[in-house]
Amino acid sequence: MNIHDLTRTLNRHNDSRIVLLVADGIGGLPQEPGGPTELEAAATPHLDALAARNVSGLLNPVLPGITPGSGPGHVSVFGYDPLEYQIGRGVLEALGIDFDLGPNDVAIRGNFCTVDSSGIITDRRAGRIPSEASARLVEKLRSIRVEGAEICLEPGLDHRFVMVLRGEGFGGDVEDTDPQVADVLPLRPVPRNAASQRTAEVAEQFIAQAAEVLKNEQPANMLLLRGFARRPSMPTMQEVYGLKPAAIAVYPMYRGLARLVGMDILPKVADIEEQVHRLGEYWDRYDFFFVHFKYTDSAGEDGDFEEKVRRIEELDAHIPAIEALKPDVLIVTGDHSTPAKMSQHSWHPVPVVLAASTCRPDEATRFGESQCLRGGLGQIEARYLLPLALAHAGRLQKFGA
Amino acid sequence: MNIHDLTRTLNRHNDSRIVLLVADGIGGLPQEPGGPTELEAAATPHLDALAARNVSGLLNPVLPGITPGSGPGHVSVFGYDPLEYQIGRGVLEALGIDFDLGPNDVAIRGNFCTVDSSGIITDRRAGRIPSEASARLVEKLRSIRVEGAEICLEPGLDHRFVMVLRGEGFGGDVEDTDPQVADVLPLRPVPRNAASQRTAEVAEQFIAQAAEVLKNEQPANMLLLRGFARRPSMPTMQEVYGLKPAAIAVYPMYRGLARLVGMDILPKVADIEEQVHRLGEYWDRYDFFFVHFKYTDSAGEDGDFEEKVRRIEELDAHIPAIEALKPDVLIVTGDHSTPAKMSQHSWHPVPVVLAASTCRPDEATRFGESQCLRGGLGQIEARYLLPLALAHAGRLQKFGA
Repeated sequence: MNIHDLTRTLNRHNDSRIVLLVADGIGGLPQEPGGPTELEAAATPHLDALAARNVSGLLNPVLPGITPGSGPGHVSVFGYDPLEYQIGRGVLEALGIDFDLGPNDVAIRGNFCTVDSSGIITDRRAGRIPSEASARLVEKLRSIRVEGAEICLEPGLDHRFVMVLRGEGFGGDVEDTDPQVADVLPLRPVPRNAASQRTAEVAEQFIAQAAEVLKNEQPANMLLLRGFARRPSMPTMQEVYGLKPAAIAVYPMYRGLARLVGMDILPKVADIEEQVHRLGEYWDRYDFFFVHFKYTDSAGEDGDFEEKVRRIEELDAHIPAIEALKPDVLIVTGDHSTPAKMSQHSWHPVPVVLAASTCRPDEATRFGESQCLRGGLGQIEARYLLPLALAHAGRLQKFGA
Repeated sequence: MNIHDLTRTLNRHNDSRIVLLVADGIGGLPQEPGGPTELEAAATPHLDALAARNVSGLLNPVLPGITPGSGPGHVSVFGYDPLEYQIGRGVLEALGIDFDLGPNDVAIRGNFCTVDSSGIITDRRAGRIPSEASARLVEKLRSIRVEGAEICLEPGLDHRFVMVLRGEGFGGDVEDTDPQVADVLPLRPVPRNAASQRTAEVAEQFIAQAAEVLKNEQPANMLLLRGFARRPSMPTMQEVYGLKPAAIAVYPMYRGLARLVGMDILPKVADIEEQVHRLGEYWDRYDFFFVHFKYTDSAGEDGDFEEKVRRIEELDAHIPAIEALKPDVLIVTGDHSTPAKMSQHSWHPVPVVLAASTCRPDEATRFGESQCLRGGLGQIEARYLLPLALAHAGRLQKFGA
């Protein structure tokens, strides 16, 4: 019996609204010993007031020491066990270009590459050809037909593209053809189980035809496939929480992750101001809103402490407009930490503040990593955040008599 | 491997005494923003001294966000996983009237109801007839005989009664006959599995005869059955902890819950003063004592902040008499929170203080929710409290070489 078994039976409907604001990679580290983290350095009067009046804490996206990618990071704040619901590389790429993956589709990440006259890889990224070149080549590849399979191809950034196999009986467990090193032949797409036999056959036929189509191109005269995956079969938030959820995200990958758990995707927005506007616009039509803010992570990945501070302050300035909608539960957190000092995702627990009328106060007076250590939520697995939100929204009945 | 697998093999006997004082629903919330909780508002010099000298923390009865009923709340402070050992409604009702349920008994909650001449329910509670009327009707129903089953009937409060089927081959998985709404016929008792086929048949025969017995009564001319359940098969505290446990509780439901885990039930008591007296009386005959204090929960359920404060102070006044017995381990906690502000059980973690000579001190100087956040026990699942008590009592050997 797990938490979803409980929430499935205990959830009840009411007129409450829950807002989950995910500031991607918000958790950080001091740049210098003794210094503040990005969140602590930022002037965040509105987040501080939220933390002072409500309850805060720290979330572990996966397990201590485990650094999550964007997939597991979001899966867990959506209330799903990231070890149970794993998102393959191909799936994440497909989500990242807003591809609406079906439950039986196999998504694959493709790279154009350069091979010599004997087929040996000389450049795994074909000199990182520009996106426009990729788009032209993808258009050529679309002429390829393989019996019994629908093949969808979409260009990505630079030398990358996304391939999706649609049809019956395609398992997702096939080895990469990308050997990860140059000076060798591409590998064959080897099925890892019987259910993926057909997938491997279709991939092999596609590769053979692609080699013909591309043979006179330079430098992109061949391609490599990796990250074969089907989307995980996840119960929707409607099923496990009784919520009618919507996502408001600028970037397609986060819309895609939201789609995996059954969220409706609200019309496109360009920035946080438009996101908050959209929130108000759809306030009466949904009861759960996921709002994604990307730039805290981008700045962290760039190793730009000051920019991350600035982005946090930008986000803080929009908190009053969200509060003005009077959500019953407002949560601000991240999907993982991205300390500018490390220029990458990290395993450090993620600050969280939860605001509701049923919060038991704690001693935190500001929103920041060291204050969150004193927070009443303690340090918990991120997947328990959603059940807590439901509880504070009055949406969970008592367990047992 | 779970904690019981460890405690089964690691427990050892000594002459120590453990007292677990459960103040039902003790955890609370501030009535006003910035104010104290009930426990913080109460003058509790003795509990404060316990917390200052020992170790405190917060317990999660089930999982974050999950509000426990009395069943799961107690199961977990007794050291059992409340998701593994679930207590059905019928069982809890039977325990609530001190019915000594056998391991194969099926317990059912009954309601007298009113039906019209075509059998349609007009009042699911028969006008909430008084308990004396129920008692008279139950006496009439005792004349009913069904082949192969012993049927025990006991009156409850108002229109309620408890029915227990005793015999061989009675599964507990049968659907309620109570449709939960009026203006429809009662439902049939449908078995959910083959093992419960016989239970459903007996219930059906009982209902048919009861309709005859009650047909000339008004308003209680029919009955509804719900919450069919067998008691969970729980290993005793003797088996998993090597303890000889006793329960001292004013209310039958808590005596019943204690009986489920193998506690002996000490003779009846009327109030906390008599409970503490009973504790001293039996001090040499048991090594573990569960003392249950109900009124913190009752006041919380009534939404009466001041009364809950007063009840906490009443309890505090009896702490010295318990300490005078020199328990090796004294624990004061609750089975769940019942904030007066919410007038119901809640999911908020429950304050706990554990006093023993082997406590590592923490920074808590009083016993209250916000101080417990600084407590050395941290925030843990309530089911780990008993192993901690055993450890502090010197009753657990080293695990592994």
